[in-house]
Amino acid sequence: MEKPRNGEKEEPKACICGYDSLHRLLKDNLNPHHFQEVSRLLTGLNCGKALETIALPESATAFSVEHGFDLQAFSFCADEELLREPRVVRVGLIQNSIALPTTAHFVDQKKAIFEKLKPMIDAAGSAGVNILCLQEAWMMPFAFCTREKRWCEFAEPVDGESTKFLQTFAVKYNMVIISSILERDINHGEVIWNTSVVIGNHGNIIGKHRKNHIPRVGDFNESTYYMEGNTGHPVFETAFGKIAINICYGRHHPLNWLAFGLNGAEIVFNPSATVGELSEPMWPIEARNAAIANSYFVASINRVGTETFPNAFTSGDGKPAHADFGHFYGSSNVSAPDASCTPSLSRNRDGLLVADMDLNLCRQVKDKWGFRMTSRYELYADTLARYVKPDFEPQVISDPLLHKKSS
Amino acid sequence: MEKPRNGEKEEPKACICGYDSLHRLLKDNLNPHHFQEVSRLLTGLNCGKALETIALPESATAFSVEHGFDLQAFSFCADEELLREPRVVRVGLIQNSIALPTTAHFVDQKKAIFEKLKPMIDAAGSAGVNILCLQEAWMMPFAFCTREKRWCEFAEPVDGESTKFLQTFAVKYNMVIISSILERDINHGEVIWNTSVVIGNHGNIIGKHRKNHIPRVGDFNESTYYMEGNTGHPVFETAFGKIAINICYGRHHPLNWLAFGLNGAEIVFNPSATVGELSEPMWPIEARNAAIANSYFVASINRVGTETFPNAFTSGDGKPAHADFGHFYGSSNVSAPDASCTPSLSRNRDGLLVADMDLNLCRQVKDKWGFRMTSRYELYADTLARYVKPDFEPQVISDPLLHKKSS
Repeated sequence: MEKPRNGEKEEPKACICGYDSLHRLLKDNLNPHHFQEVSRLLTGLNCGKALETIALPESATAFSVEHGFDLQAFSFCADEELLREPRVVRVGLIQNSIALPTTAHFVDQKKAIFEKLKPMIDAAGSAGVNILCLQEAWMMPFAFCTREKRWCEFAEPVDGESTKFLQTFAVKYNMVIISSILERDINHGEVIWNTSVVIGNHGNIIGKHRKNHIPRVGDFNESTYYMEGNTGHPVFETAFGKIAINICYGRHHPLNWLAFGLNGAEIVFNPSATVGELSEPMWPIEARNAAIANSYFVASINRVGTETFPNAFTSGDGKPAHADFGHFYGSSNVSAPDASCTPSLSRNRDGLLVADMDLNLCRQVKDKWGFRMTSRYELYADTLARYVKPDFEPQVISDPLLHKKSS
Repeated sequence: MEKPRNGEKEEPKACICGYDSLHRLLKDNLNPHHFQEVSRLLTGLNCGKALETIALPESATAFSVEHGFDLQAFSFCADEELLREPRVVRVGLIQNSIALPTTAHFVDQKKAIFEKLKPMIDAAGSAGVNILCLQEAWMMPFAFCTREKRWCEFAEPVDGESTKFLQTFAVKYNMVIISSILERDINHGEVIWNTSVVIGNHGNIIGKHRKNHIPRVGDFNESTYYMEGNTGHPVFETAFGKIAINICYGRHHPLNWLAFGLNGAEIVFNPSATVGELSEPMWPIEARNAAIANSYFVASINRVGTETFPNAFTSGDGKPAHADFGHFYGSSNVSAPDASCTPSLSRNRDGLLVADMDLNLCRQVKDKWGFRMTSRYELYADTLARYVKPDFEPQVISDPLLHKKSS
């Protein structure tokens, strides 16, 4: 599924082959001295505390070698405290392409994705991951470009087969798993939602969260399938920390990130599916900004590969009909509240990213930078309350000489 | 004033000499093919519309050669529209170090900064700049690290000598000028503020804005000198567009950026003074995120150089007293709503950045991405209204098996 998208929609200069990630491109082509300084500027590394590569058990590495997926592991640093023990959590992120053509029987497609993910989840479990997050709608192709309703057959209830598949791993590895599915809400008229299910480390379903902000941009015709979520901004208190999920397009909304922070999240996961031409320059910006502004960790996952559909569709851009969405560029990574971040997984291959983080860092950064203390929420509660009224008048100071001719 | 800060506080690995900006370091050390791809990923350039270098009149270039300041000029692209003419505005940003030692007489220090800025403002005027913005507290050393109150003598009323100095240039060049000063409010008990004065293109004072968020981090002891601003989030309707000013530390606050957007800003200026060890990895993130999230342009200015003070001070970090704030790393730049951004000015030298931008791009990006339309402000008005109440209860879903031992 990793072939480059066809040339018609993408400008040739917009993609070069033969590199796997920005991090590796820079590391392979700059001298170590320059690379270190570029890393400091781009990822906040080597600036005070350094991000360290961590060694994983051989069993985990063996899975990645045998099944050919990218595997990287890093550890963030935090200060030691006098009154609290470190609260180090090992997080895992899985990005993957689909496993069969979209023309295969839906049952076979889903089963093939399950089979593909097994060794990756086993690798995460073997690596001692505490909280694992999969990409958005991991159990199906991202068919929302087509506007065809038959893809709704991929939808499942919260306790459906994808959840059951993952519950066994949650128990086996004592691991919290966040699973983003296309949900069918049987008890409310069989309506469809874009939903993350949080599975506890004992295999129980802790709860769910539904995507708050739904895109209507380019081929992201998602509002055709489901509405804005009705679950608020829940924070899930798990055995390994307080977590929340900002699903895909919600990463463009600072208020969405804020609300998870106000509710006490220490790690916010951003399971996504987004393509190069549309969003790639935004990808390294928004998650890191959210981590900085809200003093929590952000774990971002994007699917990889190009998915081709049986019936061509148009993109509302006046260009000819075509059958693929563009290249999902992977590049999953983790951002920390101190403005550091890990290198990204591959732009082209399946991958598992492992990151150790001491959740104590969240409060340490709050104490140091004081963003919460200096936020003046009362002011903004008032601003928003006024803004949403039909008679809102913006605060504008006009130059009284606006229409005077220049001398 | 550009000598590197002394080694005691900064780790040697945190700074290498001999490079001027990240952009130039990458351009000088990567092959053109790789550089183009890195630029696409890091700055959104070459991705659809490209950012172009623009040629300035020789008179402008001559000032930069004679006075040795960095001069760069770029043009952002926007689509043509059927019903609106392009609204291209030429923006200028000036970053500068101080001109005399901080031990010189205050009158001489200020006068020397005026003299230093004259050719830079003349260059901006000669280049046809419509809106010029200077850095935060440009008319004085950034003395807030010291906590000494004698530096308050630099403060001026809104219509004081710095404003008068700039008004002549505003008239001469038909140019709006944003001037961030240390303000003394004579009519309200001579209290001090951190204030931006907006001077119209006819030399009139259109209004002022006072810094909304005041830092208490590291050497930024600014809350010792002035309080949180009381001017709201004004947007100034000038001859060249609707502009606002988010002063320095306010860039860490997404709600501050949001409020300027709600009031209709098309360009938000961020005059700053910040040092490498503290904030440099955040610098390329926050302004760009604000431009993306709010569908407006952001123009960021940071002072340059190292300022040494007569009396040593401590930084609340347990380290020995010292006499400088660290290196102000310049790196002024402009971010666009489509996620593109200009290269940054020098990390070490004074500079003038010129950028052409068609303000029509703001609405074009709003129409394309729909962030405003999908923002659900009612939801967040409610969240914030609840959050600011003393009895606020965060939305937390606890795993009922939280305290069960793993089998």
